[in-house]
Amino acid sequence: MRIGIDAMGGDQAPAAEAGGALSARSVLGRGDKIVLVGDESVILPHLEGHDGWQDWIEIHHAREVISMDEPPVEALRAKPDSSIAVVAQLHADGDIDACISAGSTGAFVAAGQMRLRRLKGVHRPGILIVTPTPHGPVAVCDVGANVSCRPRHLHQYGIMASVYVNLVCGVREPRVGLLSVGEEEAKGNTLVKQTRELLENDSQLPFVDNVEGRDLFRGVCDVMVCEGFVGNVVLKLMEGMAEGVLAGMLKELATSMPEHAAAIKKAAGTILGKYDFNEYGGAPLLGVDGICIICHGASNHRGIKNAIQVAAELSKHHVNERIVELLSR
Amino acid sequence: MRIGIDAMGGDQAPAAEAGGALSARSVLGRGDKIVLVGDESVILPHLEGHDGWQDWIEIHHAREVISMDEPPVEALRAKPDSSIAVVAQLHADGDIDACISAGSTGAFVAAGQMRLRRLKGVHRPGILIVTPTPHGPVAVCDVGANVSCRPRHLHQYGIMASVYVNLVCGVREPRVGLLSVGEEEAKGNTLVKQTRELLENDSQLPFVDNVEGRDLFRGVCDVMVCEGFVGNVVLKLMEGMAEGVLAGMLKELATSMPEHAAAIKKAAGTILGKYDFNEYGGAPLLGVDGICIICHGASNHRGIKNAIQVAAELSKHHVNERIVELLSR
Repeated sequence: MRIGIDAMGGDQAPAAEAGGALSARSVLGRGDKIVLVGDESVILPHLEGHDGWQDWIEIHHAREVISMDEPPVEALRAKPDSSIAVVAQLHADGDIDACISAGSTGAFVAAGQMRLRRLKGVHRPGILIVTPTPHGPVAVCDVGANVSCRPRHLHQYGIMASVYVNLVCGVREPRVGLLSVGEEEAKGNTLVKQTRELLENDSQLPFVDNVEGRDLFRGVCDVMVCEGFVGNVVLKLMEGMAEGVLAGMLKELATSMPEHAAAIKKAAGTILGKYDFNEYGGAPLLGVDGICIICHGASNHRGIKNAIQVAAELSKHHVNERIVELLSR
Repeated sequence: MRIGIDAMGGDQAPAAEAGGALSARSVLGRGDKIVLVGDESVILPHLEGHDGWQDWIEIHHAREVISMDEPPVEALRAKPDSSIAVVAQLHADGDIDACISAGSTGAFVAAGQMRLRRLKGVHRPGILIVTPTPHGPVAVCDVGANVSCRPRHLHQYGIMASVYVNLVCGVREPRVGLLSVGEEEAKGNTLVKQTRELLENDSQLPFVDNVEGRDLFRGVCDVMVCEGFVGNVVLKLMEGMAEGVLAGMLKELATSMPEHAAAIKKAAGTILGKYDFNEYGGAPLLGVDGICIICHGASNHRGIKNAIQVAAELSKHHVNERIVELLSR
């Protein structure tokens, strides 16, 4: 398997991308390669000095970079030789089997959709994240690819996310919940009401019911389906709470028990690690005819390494093939 | 001032409502009264035995109750003598100056809108919550009254919430943020893009920019404007994280340092208290021609008491008058 990485997009690029590629050797199969896409002269210094990196890493030169704040589609048109455009094109050409980026999510999603097209039967691709909860991981889809969903898009997110959770996370019969503002049928907006009908009538999908934001942490479902706008707010809010509230709380705890500050700091590290986006790696863009893994902009080398593992899992478990099979029912 | 309370709606009704009314004496002015609305035979036992409760508490009998899972509008029509319908009607008739309910939010919002009408110039009422953050309180509006917003509704939420934060929380020039999926202009859905234009063109409103979910905890704005669907998800998610993650984390910490379990439990109580909905009391329904305070269904007597204080603050600071004044510009 050949996995391409946009080496220029993340906040710590290319150090995080190069570091991730270097440390990924242990998770790669024999003959697998990582292709770092970007400015060779910038990437190379991060690899030199590491013994034998050429055995599993290649560099594919791309001279342009799309920054986080450029309008995605316009940027892709204006910069065909950007690392994001090139890594997606290499995948479309069959030169690599998966692509990863910690750069502009908008540009990467657009590049994935434009270059790779959609899997047969898929209306709209969606980004899936697996979030840790006290009751185990819950997959949330979509978290930002599609901010104006139709009911049939959400229905398919339920199907695609279930396939992922089943094959990759090993959950036998993933329970699907629809994110809404209340459990009662009367509540919710038009999108939710229409989607609920589709999900209820899909006898193949174990639909538990509408769920509320707090249910994410109550172990009531394995998959939570929502519009990309709402899902992205959920994702960022969790990040903000982990960063601002949990961290602040642990600090306060250490202050109130100064004699145990060191022990609390140690325990806190373990706990916060569970909610560190670098641990749960990349978020797959489900529904494109390929494997696109989106990383957090602030990913470090562990985040990139975990994204490489996610890409390998998607391939190994034939997630795309299973999605096409289910959608053709 | 006379403050009416739906005594039958909350999960702990009428104990929480009666307890809140009893303990509110210290925050009431001379001659102020609490009117508990509901089944007299059920409410009375919670008051009897408390010396002189008749000095500041009255009971107004209402024989019906709307439950949490009834469709709001239908329930109001079918049960004109329900505690929610009656408390709103008493307010409309001028018999009370404010009303409070921990019952069905949908029914209470509908009753408030139908009985009290809207303030002059207001398109749609919105629910405001004040959420604690490491950088101080942030007001979020709307969190569930209006799940299908138009840009002009969101614009008015910005104005109304700013008035509240200014007059009640004492923030001199509240900074307004628009909740979206990214800071860049290109991101967001149609509603956000159109609202952004309105907010930018309102020279009276200090609009900081679009904000993301994580910004809620970063001290970048004092008011966060969003559609009711998204706001309700945000509210419930924070509740779920506080309940599931923070609590779980403290438990884990106590387990990993068993010799300090008692001290951690004590410190944790203080910290979790900050994120306890009972502490920040009720959420005002801004934009109705009256004072309606919505309480969490699981409110205890402290939550009810705090809601009584919120009602008194709204009245004292003439929040509604100021909203009408600003909207007539």
